[in-house]
Amino acid sequence: MAATIAEKIFSMKCGRSVRAGDVVMAPVDAAMIHDITGPLAVRVFREMGGERVYDPERIIMLFDHQVPADSIPAAENHVFMRQFAEEQGIHNYDLLEGVCHQVVMEKGRAAPGEIIVGTDSHTCTYGAAGAFATGIGSTDMGFALKFGALYFRVPESILVEVEGAFGRRVGAKDLILSLAGDIGADGATYMALEFTGRAMREMSMAGRMTCANMAIEMGAKAGIVQPDAATWDYVTARRAIEPFDLAGDADAGYRERRRYDVTDLSPQVAVPHNVDNVVNVTDVAGTKVDQVFIGSCTNGRYEDLAEAAEVLGNADAFADGVRVIVIPASRTEYLKSLRAGLIERFVEAGALVEAPCCGPCMGGAFGLLAPGEVSLSTSNRNFRGRQGSAQASVYLSSPATAAASALYGEITDPREV
Amino acid sequence: MAATIAEKIFSMKCGRSVRAGDVVMAPVDAAMIHDITGPLAVRVFREMGGERVYDPERIIMLFDHQVPADSIPAAENHVFMRQFAEEQGIHNYDLLEGVCHQVVMEKGRAAPGEIIVGTDSHTCTYGAAGAFATGIGSTDMGFALKFGALYFRVPESILVEVEGAFGRRVGAKDLILSLAGDIGADGATYMALEFTGRAMREMSMAGRMTCANMAIEMGAKAGIVQPDAATWDYVTARRAIEPFDLAGDADAGYRERRRYDVTDLSPQVAVPHNVDNVVNVTDVAGTKVDQVFIGSCTNGRYEDLAEAAEVLGNADAFADGVRVIVIPASRTEYLKSLRAGLIERFVEAGALVEAPCCGPCMGGAFGLLAPGEVSLSTSNRNFRGRQGSAQASVYLSSPATAAASALYGEITDPREV
Repeated sequence: MAATIAEKIFSMKCGRSVRAGDVVMAPVDAAMIHDITGPLAVRVFREMGGERVYDPERIIMLFDHQVPADSIPAAENHVFMRQFAEEQGIHNYDLLEGVCHQVVMEKGRAAPGEIIVGTDSHTCTYGAAGAFATGIGSTDMGFALKFGALYFRVPESILVEVEGAFGRRVGAKDLILSLAGDIGADGATYMALEFTGRAMREMSMAGRMTCANMAIEMGAKAGIVQPDAATWDYVTARRAIEPFDLAGDADAGYRERRRYDVTDLSPQVAVPHNVDNVVNVTDVAGTKVDQVFIGSCTNGRYEDLAEAAEVLGNADAFADGVRVIVIPASRTEYLKSLRAGLIERFVEAGALVEAPCCGPCMGGAFGLLAPGEVSLSTSNRNFRGRQGSAQASVYLSSPATAAASALYGEITDPREV
Repeated sequence: MAATIAEKIFSMKCGRSVRAGDVVMAPVDAAMIHDITGPLAVRVFREMGGERVYDPERIIMLFDHQVPADSIPAAENHVFMRQFAEEQGIHNYDLLEGVCHQVVMEKGRAAPGEIIVGTDSHTCTYGAAGAFATGIGSTDMGFALKFGALYFRVPESILVEVEGAFGRRVGAKDLILSLAGDIGADGATYMALEFTGRAMREMSMAGRMTCANMAIEMGAKAGIVQPDAATWDYVTARRAIEPFDLAGDADAGYRERRRYDVTDLSPQVAVPHNVDNVVNVTDVAGTKVDQVFIGSCTNGRYEDLAEAAEVLGNADAFADGVRVIVIPASRTEYLKSLRAGLIERFVEAGALVEAPCCGPCMGGAFGLLAPGEVSLSTSNRNFRGRQGSAQASVYLSSPATAAASALYGEITDPREV
């Protein structure tokens, strides 16, 4: 019987054919907790009488939101989590590796057909590896830590076929912002977005991560890029696993089929204060910016930094009065960027390049905005107050648009630099 | 009439011969304000009816304590200061250059014979350039911003003659910690420490900055390294100024003359919770550390990072369970370190390398310690609560000792690595 990718994954995992709407208890291949939500999940695990986690090898624990510790309670959370890891024999990546989603991907912890849960909404990023990956609450995680399984309602899927080829300095982030504008912030609530088409097949794994990452911004339970040779190359380079076919059937019961052609897509910008408030960059070009942030689980990879550096070119410096914060998403991405000369170029031009962490996207204690200030950010959310004052404004864009805007001190079309 | 360096500087500036104990109104050559104390000083300036600062070219404004903004009030402070700079025509270094004291030095804003004030206690760092430089409160700074002058009591001086040559992996920080242990945290209150002798002459400018920087840790009003060819080389490479002789007279009325020989000096460690609680590293070797911080205005220069990297050598990684935070003191030092391959080595080994700022030394929202945790830090203060919880412990050491300790996860004599 024809099935979507989501249905196929749940069917494989449950050992029987299940369909959208079915409520199932499914095993989880991995569970990711981080420094903010982890302590809550562990407390729930304890309240449920949890003594040993179901499988320490399947628990991934990364610190990225408050790194290095930005308060005494944050430092205490870190200590608490390290003690839990030691007690449970969890291999502890701790705080030195980077943003959780990037690290899960680059350590090969996600693969096609797997079900992965994480106590962070952008857990859906691992859909770039063909996994069904979704963010859950700490209570669900307490259960998952103990039992290694969780109740799910198998979601309906929206098929997103992306055809055409991106123009110069237009890419994955512009596509996913355009989709968010189109589908709306709650237009895919509890559904799976399944991405296929030529533009997806030609997209780097970095770009696919950007797309899967922002599925949640449309309310989606998951965003899955149909696995292909590039997916398997990425995954098999990181762990021993036998490739297999995983594709949605042409006649599967998709809730909706959407078709896009990116050939004429302009750089997109989400304007305050919602991620689905999306316009062409030309509509907001000239808007003065105080801060530009290039980083996050959405756009902090080497490819993103290289895209920004290409726009920066040999320019001496970013515009006066613009604070540029660059944060590679992981230690691996940092080293790749450093060895390619990108870090040097950014620092020469006046950027603050920070150690891998969530940075301003977290809105905690790192690169906050004062009332009235304007930020352009490659991250994923621009809700009121997301990066500091509720009277500040956050725009979202691609790394290319961010770099162009940092160069001119105002939102700038990267195609015109 | 014979005079100390401090007396000579005040005599030159006042245009008449003054001596220790005299209260004088002296012009200030430069006034430095930063992101935390600056807003207070500007408010005092306003309350005094200040409309225009005495000379915008002589006001230096640097953000380093809360960079990037770690709270909305911090972001508001930054905005407030930027607006003041624009209004007053102050050339605004803002937040991209680094830790204030390092930037003042490397921009050539301090020179022999000058009087420089700053609203930060470690303003005494500029004594490495032969200036009389001292930290003042925001009220005094309000006055200085308006009038370009300030009342001073000309301080008595202690002559510190440092002879001999440092052994392997022993240096300026060990000397100044040893001095702090010897003189005590209030043993030089309101005096000037004047450093001379072979070991000082053979010391790099970076090392001299470390020594001058910590004069305040003995209560000193200033710490002045007697200028020599190295001083003038450093200063004239940064601004047009004619060298002249500036030395304390042999028969000047020094309050005290102290003589040290560093030949047999061991690596020194200040143990909790006072900077003058100083022991040989061998006395505390084996103490487990949770965090190691290499940076600050005391030890965040290229030479400091190179010293740490030399100890790190080709080791794969710092010890498991130790968080290593490396923060170059300025953009210039960062780039120098990056181009020399040091940043790559630190990141490879698992350090968090952050953009120039005060970092954990500030104890604000960056790398804080949980109760019971232990930090070894190359910074200048280990008061209870200085880097987070009042139930945490901070040890102070050289970069070499810090790197050795990071490698082994416990306080380690760098000579034995």
